[in-house]
Amino acid sequence: MNRTLGVCYYPEHWPEAQWVEDAARMASLGIVHVRIGEFAWSRLEPRRGVYEFDWLGRAIDVLHQAGLKVVLGTPTATPPKWLVDEMPDMLPVGADGLTRKFGSRRHYDFAHDGYLEECKRITLALAKAFGAHPGIAAWQTDNEYDCHNTTLSYSPAAKAGFQAWLQRKYQSPEALNRAWGNVFWSMEISEFSEVELPNLTVTEPNPTHVMDFRRFASDMVVRFNKAQADIIRAHSPGRDVIHNFMGRTLVFDHFDVGADLDISSWDSYPLGFLEDRSDQNDDWKRQFAHAGDPDFQAFHHDLYRATSKGRWWVMEQQPGPVNWAPHNPAPRNGMVRLWSWEAFAHGAETVSYFRWRQAPFAQEQMHAGLLRSDSVEAQGFHEAAQVSSELGALDRELSDSAGKADVAIVFDYPSAWAWEIQPQGREFDYFRLVFDFYRTMRRLGLSIDIVPASAPDLEGYGLVTIPGLFTWTPALIEAVRAYQGHVLIGPRSGSKTADFAIPDSLPPALPKDILDVRVTHVESLREDTPVYLAEGGSFQYWREFLEAGPETENILTTGDGVPGLVAQGNRRYLGGWPDQGLLYDIIMRLASRGGLVTKELRDGLRLRRHGNHVFAFNYGATAFDLSALGWTGKPLLGDLMIEPSGVAITPLSRAGS
Amino acid sequence: MNRTLGVCYYPEHWPEAQWVEDAARMASLGIVHVRIGEFAWSRLEPRRGVYEFDWLGRAIDVLHQAGLKVVLGTPTATPPKWLVDEMPDMLPVGADGLTRKFGSRRHYDFAHDGYLEECKRITLALAKAFGAHPGIAAWQTDNEYDCHNTTLSYSPAAKAGFQAWLQRKYQSPEALNRAWGNVFWSMEISEFSEVELPNLTVTEPNPTHVMDFRRFASDMVVRFNKAQADIIRAHSPGRDVIHNFMGRTLVFDHFDVGADLDISSWDSYPLGFLEDRSDQNDDWKRQFAHAGDPDFQAFHHDLYRATSKGRWWVMEQQPGPVNWAPHNPAPRNGMVRLWSWEAFAHGAETVSYFRWRQAPFAQEQMHAGLLRSDSVEAQGFHEAAQVSSELGALDRELSDSAGKADVAIVFDYPSAWAWEIQPQGREFDYFRLVFDFYRTMRRLGLSIDIVPASAPDLEGYGLVTIPGLFTWTPALIEAVRAYQGHVLIGPRSGSKTADFAIPDSLPPALPKDILDVRVTHVESLREDTPVYLAEGGSFQYWREFLEAGPETENILTTGDGVPGLVAQGNRRYLGGWPDQGLLYDIIMRLASRGGLVTKELRDGLRLRRHGNHVFAFNYGATAFDLSALGWTGKPLLGDLMIEPSGVAITPLSRAGS
Amino acid sequence: MNRTLGVCYYPEHWPEAQWVEDAARMASLGIVHVRIGEFAWSRLEPRRGVYEFDWLGRAIDVLHQAGLKVVLGTPTATPPKWLVDEMPDMLPVGADGLTRKFGSRRHYDFAHDGYLEECKRITLALAKAFGAHPGIAAWQTDNEYDCHNTTLSYSPAAKAGFQAWLQRKYQSPEALNRAWGNVFWSMEISEFSEVELPNLTVTEPNPTHVMDFRRFASDMVVRFNKAQADIIRAHSPGRDVIHNFMGRTLVFDHFDVGADLDISSWDSYPLGFLEDRSDQNDDWKRQFAHAGDPDFQAFHHDLYRATSKGRWWVMEQQPGPVNWAPHNPAPRNGMVRLWSWEAFAHGAETVSYFRWRQAPFAQEQMHAGLLRSDSVEAQGFHEAAQVSSELGALDRELSDSAGKADVAIVFDYPSAWAWEIQPQGREFDYFRLVFDFYRTMRRLGLSIDIVPASAPDLEGYGLVTIPGLFTWTPALIEAVRAYQGHVLIGPRSGSKTADFAIPDSLPPALPKDILDVRVTHVESLREDTPVYLAEGGSFQYWREFLEAGPETENILTTGDGVPGLVAQGNRRYLGGWPDQGLLYDIIMRLASRGGLVTKELRDGLRLRRHGNHVFAFNYGATAFDLSALGWTGKPLLGDLMIEPSGVAITPLSRAGS
Repeated sequence: MNRTLGVCYYPEHWPEAQWVEDAARMASLGIVHVRIGEFAWSRLEPRRGVYEFDWLGRAIDVLHQAGLKVVLGTPTATPPKWLVDEMPDMLPVGADGLTRKFGSRRHYDFAHDGYLEECKRITLALAKAFGAHPGIAAWQTDNEYDCHNTTLSYSPAAKAGFQAWLQRKYQSPEALNRAWGNVFWSMEISEFSEVELPNLTVTEPNPTHVMDFRRFASDMVVRFNKAQADIIRAHSPGRDVIHNFMGRTLVFDHFDVGADLDISSWDSYPLGFLEDRSDQNDDWKRQFAHAGDPDFQAFHHDLYRATSKGRWWVMEQQPGPVNWAPHNPAPRNGMVRLWSWEAFAHGAETVSYFRWRQAPFAQEQMHAGLLRSDSVEAQGFHEAAQVSSELGALDRELSDSAGKADVAIVFDYPSAWAWEIQPQGREFDYFRLVFDFYRTMRRLGLSIDIVPASAPDLEGYGLVTIPGLFTWTPALIEAVRAYQGHVLIGPRSGSKTADFAIPDSLPPALPKDILDVRVTHVESLREDTPVYLAEGGSFQYWREFLEAGPETENILTTGDGVPGLVAQGNRRYLGGWPDQGLLYDIIMRLASRGGLVTKELRDGLRLRRHGNHVFAFNYGATAFDLSALGWTGKPLLGDLMIEPSGVAITPLSRAGS
Repeated sequence: MNRTLGVCYYPEHWPEAQWVEDAARMASLGIVHVRIGEFAWSRLEPRRGVYEFDWLGRAIDVLHQAGLKVVLGTPTATPPKWLVDEMPDMLPVGADGLTRKFGSRRHYDFAHDGYLEECKRITLALAKAFGAHPGIAAWQTDNEYDCHNTTLSYSPAAKAGFQAWLQRKYQSPEALNRAWGNVFWSMEISEFSEVELPNLTVTEPNPTHVMDFRRFASDMVVRFNKAQADIIRAHSPGRDVIHNFMGRTLVFDHFDVGADLDISSWDSYPLGFLEDRSDQNDDWKRQFAHAGDPDFQAFHHDLYRATSKGRWWVMEQQPGPVNWAPHNPAPRNGMVRLWSWEAFAHGAETVSYFRWRQAPFAQEQMHAGLLRSDSVEAQGFHEAAQVSSELGALDRELSDSAGKADVAIVFDYPSAWAWEIQPQGREFDYFRLVFDFYRTMRRLGLSIDIVPASAPDLEGYGLVTIPGLFTWTPALIEAVRAYQGHVLIGPRSGSKTADFAIPDSLPPALPKDILDVRVTHVESLREDTPVYLAEGGSFQYWREFLEAGPETENILTTGDGVPGLVAQGNRRYLGGWPDQGLLYDIIMRLASRGGLVTKELRDGLRLRRHGNHVFAFNYGATAFDLSALGWTGKPLLGDLMIEPSGVAITPLSRAGS
Repeated sequence: MNRTLGVCYYPEHWPEAQWVEDAARMASLGIVHVRIGEFAWSRLEPRRGVYEFDWLGRAIDVLHQAGLKVVLGTPTATPPKWLVDEMPDMLPVGADGLTRKFGSRRHYDFAHDGYLEECKRITLALAKAFGAHPGIAAWQTDNEYDCHNTTLSYSPAAKAGFQAWLQRKYQSPEALNRAWGNVFWSMEISEFSEVELPNLTVTEPNPTHVMDFRRFASDMVVRFNKAQADIIRAHSPGRDVIHNFMGRTLVFDHFDVGADLDISSWDSYPLGFLEDRSDQNDDWKRQFAHAGDPDFQAFHHDLYRATSKGRWWVMEQQPGPVNWAPHNPAPRNGMVRLWSWEAFAHGAETVSYFRWRQAPFAQEQMHAGLLRSDSVEAQGFHEAAQVSSELGALDRELSDSAGKADVAIVFDYPSAWAWEIQPQGREFDYFRLVFDFYRTMRRLGLSIDIVPASAPDLEGYGLVTIPGLFTWTPALIEAVRAYQGHVLIGPRSGSKTADFAIPDSLPPALPKDILDVRVTHVESLREDTPVYLAEGGSFQYWREFLEAGPETENILTTGDGVPGLVAQGNRRYLGGWPDQGLLYDIIMRLASRGGLVTKELRDGLRLRRHGNHVFAFNYGATAFDLSALGWTGKPLLGDLMIEPSGVAITPLSRAGS
C-alpha cells in the first residue's frame, strides 16, 4: 500500500502567480493529493451558461506538473447567487417554517428536482472538461453532506418529494394509515397529497410519520450523491469517487451513500468535535482540550472504513486551531502528527490536511492552515513533514490493510433516527450508547470493526455487540444464529418493528432460539436515580423489565429482583444502560471468554492493531512505559517510554498480545 | 355513594372480534365506567357528511351488554384532515406568528366560528344517534382543553373575535383607552378594529391589553364547551356532562367551564407531573421519582371538587410508566392503588384508568395500560383489582361526601394570568405561591377546600388563606367581613384593580375596617438575597413595604424594621413570600388559634379526612407507625404500621383528632 | 458651573388641574429641568394632520411659570397606530424574519425613509410651535435609541437602504466582492441588488458582510438623529439638543450620534443593569443587589462625557425599584443620593430623575417615581431633596469641569461589533474586556477618561490602554507615536484590517517602530483551562502566540514559553486576556512608572477626582475609614469614616494623592 498525505487548496483564493511556488512547496513537503475546486461555482460559471474553466485547467496543470494528484470537487455545496435567484424555492426551510437564505453555504434542498438538474449539469460540464486529465486522480462530490444540519428541510419541494416517496412505498393511503397507526388521534389521510411534513405540529407527530420522513430525507442525499457519481464515472473512468463525511453526523445513512462511493472520507477536527459534539463532562473536556477525545476519531475511522468496504481517507485533518467551536484551542505540539498516524493505524489510505494556507478573509479566516496567511510554515506544516518522513521510512513495512479487528459493533443509522424521534428518556441517544460501548472496548485495548446491520459479516470476531438497534434484519438474525462467538445485545435492541411499533410479542423481536426474553416495560431514569444491581454497578438513564424464558440463565439481577443481564447460549441480553464500570466488567469478561487479550488502558493511552503491527498513542499529558503492557524491544517508531502526544509502532509479536 | 372504577378504551384501535373479551375482562376486574370515542372523528365521519356510526353503536352495545356504563367523548380534539383542508384558517397560530399544522391533536382555534359550528354539528349527530342509548351514562366534551398550550392562539380568527369581545366590553374606544391607560406610549386606538393581538411587540405589551386577551381566550374555551354541553343536554337527558381537565393548567378559568358541567374530572399523572410541572428541587424529584409529589394530586382533587360544586372524577389515572415527561420511571408497586384511594379520600365518585390496553403504535405506544400490548395484565391491572376488591368491602362504610374541610384557600384563575403577565420578579408564580400554602397546610395534616374568589363560601372553616389574589370581588370582601375565623391574606393579594392598575390608595384595595394596611412599594429578590425577619425566618423572592394603620398590630418585623406580618382583628396580612419554615410556623399558630388539630407530618406521609374517616397515605420509602399521630386500634383498611405505598383508613374517632 | 437636578414628567398622564401643584412641588424640591413630551404623539396628533398642541403649550407654561426649564422630547419613539396602519412596512423585522407589531414602543425601522419623513414633519411642527418658547431650555431627540434591540432590522426597507449604502461605499460589485472576500464559498454578487441582509443564513454569514451591515445600521441611527437635530437647531436657536443613551448599548456608534448633539445624556438604572447586563458572577450580584455595580455607572459617565466632548447629563436616574429586570430590588437607603453625586463627580451638568410620579397604569406601573402613585413622597424624593440641599451648599466650591483624568482607555464601537461577529471564543466580548480594564484602574483609585479611536487625544495621561481594538486609525498610530507615557496594547488590538481581514503581515497591524510583534495564531480557552504565566497569574478565555522582534523585551512569559507581555519603549503588548489579579499587577506597575499614585480599594469603595476635589463613594455594606487612604481633615461633604451608601468630598490636597 502506498499511504499518502494530502492537502486542500483553493487556487481561486490566491494570485495565479503563486500557484507554482505553492505546488513546489507541497511536493517538497511530501504531499501527494491536492483537493481543489469544491466551492468555486461562482468562478466556474459566473453567469448561467458562461463557463470559465480555463483557470481551473491551469491550476490542475500546475499541480500535475509538480507531480501532485488532484482530487477535484464538484462545487454543488455553494450554488451561486444568480442560480438561487433563478429558483428561490431551492432554498431549504427550517423546522420553524422559515426559509434559509443565500450568504453562506449548503443553501439548497436535497429534494429539489430543479437544483438536482443544475448539479448534474455542472458536474457533467466539469467531468467532460477534466475527467480525462492525467492530473485528476479522484473526485469529491459536493462537500460535507448535512453540515449545518442541512439534510432535513421542510420546503414545498420536500413535501412534494415526500408524498411521492410515500406513494411508491405504500401504494395506497390505506396501507400508509395502517402502517402508521393513523387511527390514533384521527390522523388518517385519504390521499397521499394530504400528508404534511412533520413539523410545527401542536404536539409530537406520529413517530412512524417522522421515521418515514427521515428515511425519505436520507434517500434524497443518496439520490443527490449518486447523480453526481454516475456522471463522474461515465466521464472520468478509473478515478475514485469520494465524499467527505463529517463527525457525529447521523441524519443520513452513510452506508447507503457509501455504496455509491469508491472511497469514504471524513473531516477530522478532534478539538472542535470535543468542544462541540461530545457528551463527556467538563473534566474530560478540560483534560483533552488540546489533544482531542482519545476515541472520537478512532470511532469514525472505523465507521467510515465500513461505509466503503475498507477504502477510506481523512479528507480534512485539523492542522491547528479552528474557528467554529465554542472554544478553539491550539493542538498540543505533536498532536497533528499523532492524529495522522492514528488514521493510518485504522487503515486510512490518505490523510489530507485542511488547508494549505490560512485564508485571511471571509468566514474561516481564523482557521489554521499548514501555512500561516503570510505563507510562513505553521506548526501543522512541521508535523506533516515529520509524518511524511516517517511514512517514507515505514510505509513498506506496514501491512496493506488493517485486517479484521478483534471485536465488532453493529451500527445502524435508522436506529439513531428512531431514538431521536422517541428517546422516551431525555438522555437516550443512540450515538452516546454506541460510543459508550466503543470507548469501553477501546479502553480494554481492543481493535474494533463497525458492521452495518444491513449486511452483517460477523465471522472471526471474538465478540459482537448490538446495542440499541431499532429493528433487526433477517440477515442479522441469521448471522447471529450462525456466529459462534459471544454476542452482547441490548439495551433496547430489536424493540420495534420496521413500522415503528412494539412487536406483537413484545421486544426484542427475536426468535426464541436466539433469545427467549421479553421486555414487558421500560423506565427512563433521572441521572440521580440509577437502578443498582445486586452484583454491583448500576443502570443509568434506562432500564428494562425482563421476563426471561426457561432456556436463559440469569447473570446479573437488579436490587429490586429483575433480571439485568441474561444469557442464552453464547448470547447475552442487557436490560439497561450500564454505568461505565459495569460495562467495562461485562465486556472484559465476555472478551476473556472469547479468547481475546485485553489491557487496562488509562484514559489517555490507546492501542490499535493494524495487520501485523500494534500502534500506541498517548493522548495524555504524562509519559507512559509501554513495557507495562508487555511491549518488548525497541519499537519500529517511537520508544517504549511514550511521551505525551507520542506514537509508537511495534510488531504484534512484541506487543504483549 | 357508589364509588366506581373506570377505564379508557379505544374500540377503533382493536379488531372488533376482541371487543367482547375485552368487555368481559373489564367487568370481571370490577370496572364500571368505560370512556370511548373521544379521538375517533376520522372513523365516525371519514368524509364530509358521510357518517359511519355503526361500529360505535356496536361497541356501545358490547360494553352495555357486559354491564358496563359508557362515557362517550365528542371527538372534537382531533378534527380530521379533510376538515382542516376545508378551513385551514381554523388552525391555531403561536405567539411566534407561525401556524400550527395538522398531524397530532388539538389543532384548532377556540375562537374560530366555523370550527365551532362543525363541532356542534358532529356533537348533535352523536347526541341524536346515541343520546338515548341505555348504555350511555355520561358524555365527555372534547379532551383536555389547553393541553399542549392550545388556549392562546394568535390567528386572524382570534383577532376578530377579540375585537368583537372588546367592543362588547368597552362599548367605545375611549373607554378602552382609559381602562388600559393607552395614553402611555401613545398606544391609543380610535376604532376597535385597530386593536392588535398582544404578541410580537417590540417590548412588553400593555398588561391590561394582555389581561383582556387572556380573559377573552378563557371565554372562548367556555363558549366552546357550553356549545357542546347544551346540545348533549338537549338530546341525552339524564346523562352527566363531564370534561377532563389537566394538572397545573391555569390558562382558562375552570370555574367558568365547570359551571356548564355536571362533573369535573381530571387526568392524574403523578410521575409525569412531578418530572414536568413541578417547582420542587432535584432532591425532592429524586425522592419521589417513583411515587409522585405527595401534594400535587391532592391539590387538584380539591380544586376540581370545587369547580363542579362537589361532583368530580379522575378520568385518566396513570397506571404505569408514561411516555411524555423528560423521564418516565415506573411507579413503585402499590402506588397506582394509593393514587386511586387518595382520589376517593378527596371525594371522587370514579377513578378511571388510562388506558385499557397499551397501544403498540403511534404517539403513545410507550404509555402503559392496565394490559400490556400483548394483552397480558400489567402491574396497574393488579392494583386496580385490589382497589376494586377493597371498594367492594368498604364503599358502604364510607361517607357519601368528603364533607367540609378544615381550612380553605381562595383560588382564582385570573390571578394566575395577572402574575404571569407581570411577575415583577422572575420567581413570582401564582400556582407556586398557592401551592406553597397548600403544601404547608397538608404537611400539618389539615384537609383543605379550595374556594373560588367569585363565589366564596367561608363558613365553617378553621382558617382561610388568600395569597396573591389579583383583585377582590365585593362578594369576597363581604364574606371575609362576615367570617369569624382567622384569615391570612397576602402577599400581593388585592394589589390591582380589575383594570390591572394600582389602586388609588395603594394596595391592598380593601376597606380600612378589613385591613388598614398600605403597600407603598415592593421588591423582588434574587434567591440568594432573602429578607430576614427579626423573629426568625425570611421572605424570599418577594417582599412588600407596609404602612400599617393604628388599628393594626405588628406580629412580625423584618430585620430592617418594616412590618412583615400585621394583624387586624382576626385578619392577618403577610408582606412577603415566606420561606417554608416561616409559613409553617405562621399557619400552625393560626390553625391552633382556630381550634384545629395539626400534626407534624414528615415528607412522605399525608392524611385526608373524608366524612367520618381519616385516610393515611405513605408516599415515602420507609414504613411509619401511625400510633405516633394518635391513631389507635386496627384501621378499617391497612395497618397502623403503614408501609411504603401503603394506605390506611380509620374512623375519625380513632385518628387522634 | 450650575449643576442642576431634573425630573421626567408626563402631563398627559394626569389631570390638568394637578399640573400647577406638581410644578410647585418640583420647584420646592430644587428641581430645575423637567423633561416632557417624548411619548405623546397620539395626544399631539390624534389623526393625521390634526395637531393638538394646546395642552402641551399649557403644560410648558405651567412649568415655566414655576421657574422650571423644560426639555421637550420629540415623540418619535412611539408612532401612533394610525401612522403605523398607513405605512405598515415601517415596522422592524427581527433576525428571525418576523415583523414586530404595534403595541409597545420603538416599533419603527431606522432605515425606513417614509417614517423618517414623518419624524421630520412632527419635529418641525413642534419646533415651530415651541422652539422660541422661553420655557424651553433644551430638546431630547426620540428616546433611548436601540432600547429593546431596535437598531438592527431585517426589513425590506433595511435591505434597500443597505444596498444603496453599499453602492455608495464600494461603487462596483467587484470592489465589494474583493473587500468581502466573496470568492470564498462562491458568495460573489454581480449587482448590488443581489446583496441580502445577513440573517437566516444556513451557517454564519461573511463577517465583512455583517460588519458592513452593522456600520449601515449605525449610520441609519445617526441619520435619524441628525434629521431631527437639524430641524430643532433651525427653529429653536440657543437650545441644547440632547439624546438619552442607555447602558451597555453598543450597537450604534455613540460618538457619531454624539457629534450631532450638544449634550449626551444617559439613563442610569444601577440595580436593573446589575441584574440584567452584568458579566459578574452571582456572588457579586448578591453583594451589590441593593447598591448597583460600583463601576458600571462610572464607566458610562466617562463614556458619555466623551461622546459629546465634555457636556453630559444623566437624563433618567433610577429613584427606587424598577420593573424590567429579572429581579427588582429596592435601592439601599442613600443610594439614590450616592448615584447622583457619582454623576456630578464625573462632570455631569444635570441629574434628572425618572419619573416624577409613579404611574398606576400600563407597562411601567411597577416603576418607582419620586412620588408614589398616591402623590406621597417616596424614598427617592427625600434623597433628591438632600442632593439639592448639598448642591446648594457646594456647587460653587467645586470646579466647573472634571478636568483631564489620570488615565485613558481607547474605546471604539465598531470593535464591539467585530468581536460580536467573530468572538472566536464564547467569552470574548469587547465590553467585558474593556470593562475589566476599566474596573481594574478604578480599583486602583484612578480617574479615567474614555477616548475615541477616531479622534484620540492622549496628551497628559499617565497611562493609556488600548484593549481589543478592531482596527487602528492612522490618527491613533500617530497619537501613540507622539505620546510619551506608557501604553498598554492588546489583546487582539489591531488584529484586523478595516475590511475585516487578517493584516498582510499578521496582527497587530502596527508599524514596527511602534510594535515589532506578530501574533502568529491565537487560541480561545475554556474557563477551566487557563494558560499560566511563569511569573504568576494567567490568561483566561484568550491567548495569543507572539513572535517578538529584536527591539522588544520580554516582560512576562507563559508556562509553555511564549511571550505573554512584551515591551518596546513605552509600549507594551499583552498577548492574552489577563485574570483580574494579573491585570491589576500589570496596570499598577505601569501606573507607578507613569508617576500615578494608586490606592488599593476594596470592592465597595470608589474614588473619583473632579477638578481640585476627590470624591469617595461607599457602595459596600460596611463603613470605611478614609484616613487609611491618606485622607486628612474633615471632608467638605461627609466624614472620614464613610458609612455604607456614603459620599465624601475633600480637596485634592487632603486626599493623600
